[in-house]
Amino acid sequence: MKSYNVAVVGATGMVGQKMLQVLAELKFPVKNLYPMASKRSVGKEIIFNDKSYLVEELCDEAFDQDIDIALFSAGGDTSERFSPVAAAKGVIVIDNSSAFRMDPLVPLVVPEVNPEDLDWHKNIIANPNCSTIQAVVALKPLYDAFGIERIVYSTYQAVSGSGVNGYADLERGIKGEANSFYPHPIAYNVLPHIDVFLDNGYTKEEMKMINETQKILHDDSLRITATTVRVPVYYSHSESVNVELKKPFELSAIRQLYSTALGIVLQDDPGNNVYPLARTAENTDAVYVGRLRRDYSIENGLNLWVVADNIRKGAASNAVQIAFELINRGLI
Amino acid sequence: MKSYNVAVVGATGMVGQKMLQVLAELKFPVKNLYPMASKRSVGKEIIFNDKSYLVEELCDEAFDQDIDIALFSAGGDTSERFSPVAAAKGVIVIDNSSAFRMDPLVPLVVPEVNPEDLDWHKNIIANPNCSTIQAVVALKPLYDAFGIERIVYSTYQAVSGSGVNGYADLERGIKGEANSFYPHPIAYNVLPHIDVFLDNGYTKEEMKMINETQKILHDDSLRITATTVRVPVYYSHSESVNVELKKPFELSAIRQLYSTALGIVLQDDPGNNVYPLARTAENTDAVYVGRLRRDYSIENGLNLWVVADNIRKGAASNAVQIAFELINRGLI
Repeated sequence: MKSYNVAVVGATGMVGQKMLQVLAELKFPVKNLYPMASKRSVGKEIIFNDKSYLVEELCDEAFDQDIDIALFSAGGDTSERFSPVAAAKGVIVIDNSSAFRMDPLVPLVVPEVNPEDLDWHKNIIANPNCSTIQAVVALKPLYDAFGIERIVYSTYQAVSGSGVNGYADLERGIKGEANSFYPHPIAYNVLPHIDVFLDNGYTKEEMKMINETQKILHDDSLRITATTVRVPVYYSHSESVNVELKKPFELSAIRQLYSTALGIVLQDDPGNNVYPLARTAENTDAVYVGRLRRDYSIENGLNLWVVADNIRKGAASNAVQIAFELINRGLI
Repeated sequence: MKSYNVAVVGATGMVGQKMLQVLAELKFPVKNLYPMASKRSVGKEIIFNDKSYLVEELCDEAFDQDIDIALFSAGGDTSERFSPVAAAKGVIVIDNSSAFRMDPLVPLVVPEVNPEDLDWHKNIIANPNCSTIQAVVALKPLYDAFGIERIVYSTYQAVSGSGVNGYADLERGIKGEANSFYPHPIAYNVLPHIDVFLDNGYTKEEMKMINETQKILHDDSLRITATTVRVPVYYSHSESVNVELKKPFELSAIRQLYSTALGIVLQDDPGNNVYPLARTAENTDAVYVGRLRRDYSIENGLNLWVVADNIRKGAASNAVQIAFELINRGLI
């Protein structure tokens, strides 16, 4: 089997570390690894598949090396600065930041949903926002079978979505110490505030869910609203998803769809207390769907509860799955 | 000022204790207090307004005493058994259980919303479900000014909604101990499961929000769906409320409404990180409303974030406010 030279940019961050773990776990065919980070992490040791690597500095020249794929997870500014450089030097960039997601020349890909968009990539591929990824995996079978008219998202998002700072703030709060990262205590609290506020009163996170869902499903007419909320949970985002389908449906048909859908585990036996849970989803790559119920307040209404590990399927694993899909499609 | 003989049934429970605290804090004119509970609490001492009372046993004969008002918070079975007895003996029962809420002969009252329903009481008045109370306080000004077509509720509910058992389960989980009350760990987790599951896939809590909202607003044509969810928070329920209004609106007009609405505190300055929060609402009687945003996915769509202390406004304080309203209306 052919193997590839892979750079991980932001290799010492929470998502970068998880990317390395997932590359190893899913046995991605890595020939040489190039862990990169900012100056202050240069020289740190990274163990990958029992081999030791030293973190090298992210700079333009780093991409003169023989690199096939670069997984970027180093923030939007870093991606904006270095992704085009890497891409121009022939490296395929899979970028976890929001920098290029809405660029019409950059495919935004969830492999279970729109793998065909990889075919027109121009060396930069965007990895969607964590809360969007799990939602579109759950919505895609419905979209194909019944069409979707409208979506109302309300999310319950883990602190790891803010990286190590969010994680540490919850730990501090639980110990009775003051918050130093979020604007309010997150322990035993609920913050209706993820990312910055925009002029329309929405947060950037809410607009990401709206815009990215439309882009991934190739449907700008899809009507969507969102309220995104941080809860005192370390890993996994949960989502209350209210959907208005275009065509009539039977719940049994939707259960059938989900029982075979790509990347989905149906957990829907409420009588036995079986439904998706953040702590069950932790450290797995599936999207869990349950609490399937007809919404009687409209024709063709449906309620779903959707959970996935935000650092794995919501970030690192989706990026690695994109890399696998590039191989499957003969694009690398 | 006239004063009244008040029984508190379930005086040793979480809500009962809070009822006593609120009666004192809001200076309800109590002449004699009759704390009642089940056998195992009989003889326990209750301090109320610096006076000592002993808990007496809840039994039919207890209501032969000179009691004007009985605040019940001892569970549905106890209310079903003893409320009619008390009512038949001329006591006005304000019942916090779900036993009589949907009884067409029993008014279901939130004083800011439908105080006029007290006028037809037949000695039993039902206190609505916690998650419903705060929602209808927030919805009433919208309902009156613009009409409401449809509501999508997603809730973020505190463990104190399950009483001391829920509270203790979160404490245990934080200490790393196993859950013994909820079917799954609640610490660092999100449970889409409140009260029991019904045949239609909804929980009883979800159907309470739907049915009680319709009853309180006197509008069975109101179209509502709900997903109710437990989060690792001790006090205060938060709610993501998506509303479709009947008439066009300006956000500024809604802000204006809320700035003077009864029982509501508008907290809506997201640029300065001002929005309703569970921990801010704790131990207060207001309903906090914020994150006001147009929902662009429909005509006349609106998103709200609504928070209140579930034990105070969601239970004890609403019951005491009903008692005050009985006085205001000359009904006692």
